[in-house]
Amino acid sequence: MKEIAVGIDIGGTFTKYGIVDKEGNCLIDGTISSTDNKDIDDFLLQLKTVIDNSLDNLPQPVKMIGVGIGAPKGNFYKGTIEYASNLNWKNVVPIIELFQKHYDLPMFLTNDANAAAIGEMVYGGAKDMKNFIVITLGTGLGSGFVVNGELVYGHDGFAGEIGHVTVERDGRMCATGRRGSLETYVSASGIKRTIFQLLADSLYESEFRNITFNDLTAKMISDAAKKGDKIALEAFEITGKYLGEALSDTVLHTSPEAIFLFGGLANSGELIFEPTKRHLEKNLLQIFQDKVKILPSDLTDTNAAVMGASALVWKELSK
Amino acid sequence: MKEIAVGIDIGGTFTKYGIVDKEGNCLIDGTISSTDNKDIDDFLLQLKTVIDNSLDNLPQPVKMIGVGIGAPKGNFYKGTIEYASNLNWKNVVPIIELFQKHYDLPMFLTNDANAAAIGEMVYGGAKDMKNFIVITLGTGLGSGFVVNGELVYGHDGFAGEIGHVTVERDGRMCATGRRGSLETYVSASGIKRTIFQLLADSLYESEFRNITFNDLTAKMISDAAKKGDKIALEAFEITGKYLGEALSDTVLHTSPEAIFLFGGLANSGELIFEPTKRHLEKNLLQIFQDKVKILPSDLTDTNAAVMGASALVWKELSK
Repeated sequence: MKEIAVGIDIGGTFTKYGIVDKEGNCLIDGTISSTDNKDIDDFLLQLKTVIDNSLDNLPQPVKMIGVGIGAPKGNFYKGTIEYASNLNWKNVVPIIELFQKHYDLPMFLTNDANAAAIGEMVYGGAKDMKNFIVITLGTGLGSGFVVNGELVYGHDGFAGEIGHVTVERDGRMCATGRRGSLETYVSASGIKRTIFQLLADSLYESEFRNITFNDLTAKMISDAAKKGDKIALEAFEITGKYLGEALSDTVLHTSPEAIFLFGGLANSGELIFEPTKRHLEKNLLQIFQDKVKILPSDLTDTNAAVMGASALVWKELSK
Repeated sequence: MKEIAVGIDIGGTFTKYGIVDKEGNCLIDGTISSTDNKDIDDFLLQLKTVIDNSLDNLPQPVKMIGVGIGAPKGNFYKGTIEYASNLNWKNVVPIIELFQKHYDLPMFLTNDANAAAIGEMVYGGAKDMKNFIVITLGTGLGSGFVVNGELVYGHDGFAGEIGHVTVERDGRMCATGRRGSLETYVSASGIKRTIFQLLADSLYESEFRNITFNDLTAKMISDAAKKGDKIALEAFEITGKYLGEALSDTVLHTSPEAIFLFGGLANSGELIFEPTKRHLEKNLLQIFQDKVKILPSDLTDTNAAVMGASALVWKELSK
């Protein structure tokens, strides 16, 4: 009987799910709204319904062995989503306990960046690595650490939040109320802010002089850079500088074999990889120079987060 | 038969050794010069001789089960000391291979901060902890990370070098050729430099206006602060600010239950603990606030490094 795991990625707008086999083939997937159901029980019931439909559509027989969930502020130890500002369900949501009413199976929860790291380890480019880091570059900056072949959850389940290291004292405002966090510079929204800073600081012509802040997207910045827009190119240089400098500090902590860049901004290719590598090497302590690989994620982007969540099942049940 | 492990701490000036039982009792210890023998083979022969003498002086029978060595730039994976600038023996020294000519026993090597972390885990205040960090505050700043109950050596054996995170871009010169490293501010030599910066910047009266840089010690700064010397007090405030801010970034990486401060500067007690805790909490991301303990090491200082090195034997042989 074919064993399958269900992966679920809960985002602020959409929740994606997929049914994945042990080799990392996503057999079927789908999406529901994260915002239509104000009540978490209604949301989970809808999720169960679409998953059951998908299971029925698979060549039989299959055996579902577990569920993995990636969610913002997902706590691995407790199975709870805690104070996720971009989700409907506030305070502490015991999502594993609630979803196990529908499926009496092993379930595992972690945040999206940790899920990406597990996905890279189980299906992706880190299959043979014991020490690596995944950086997710989306609206914010997430990170998942693997040390001695195990994900680092830390004492409380919240390890790997390097989007919040301070890169500029009294720098840009962050939604957390702090200032100068890495993700206020290095993320889709960070690079937008850098574009607007450069529109203010420089006198270069740029197509962005006719675009509002709210209309600007990271994709537009990447496209403009490829066409030679000076401000867009400078924004990637600045973004890579902040990321490379921050990673040179991060390497001092866990000395990884590789750092994978994952998600939206990472798809800009050399525009972000080249300055990141250059500034990383420039700032690394000598014993770490020319050792740490900066790699693109090996997971395809469309359902990478779902893959990561499903990988959590294979990883945990193999222990 | 009583089982014992030998712990060896190789420093720039002295090499200490001790014979330690599983409960962490140091039964006998001693010291030889690290600089008298230009040849590593002569040094190891002398070390073997004094260890054998000590063994003979113990109540018999005892069984020596292994040797643990803590040394600057000690590589756990390779058993080599690599490019240690403060030791006589240059380049790469295969110290485990050489010392096993004298004792055909399991031998383990790591750097002094990692040895301190193992010591804290095996004999000290971290006995029941799975995720913690030890910061050693000596001439420099070392760090040892424990994650999921295991020491973090990283891909290459050199993880845990947070003395070299950059806290001031283009800041103080560091012996590595880089600038603004944490340890140029937070260490025995770092606080000396801060005193001299304050002598330049302020107009406060201070006993240090009659002391040369080379005569000044961290102990004198601690003593002066206790007597109310304004410049000494301000130097501890600045040192604690740099350390607390840096640790708030470090917590984001591995989310430890506790951070132990170990060694010279940590012996200044509240003078260093109070500002460190205050600036840590002020800078922590909300989800980590009021969770991370800042603790003094539980190992007695006189032979703590030797204890840590011996603990490496018990830890590795228990696997």
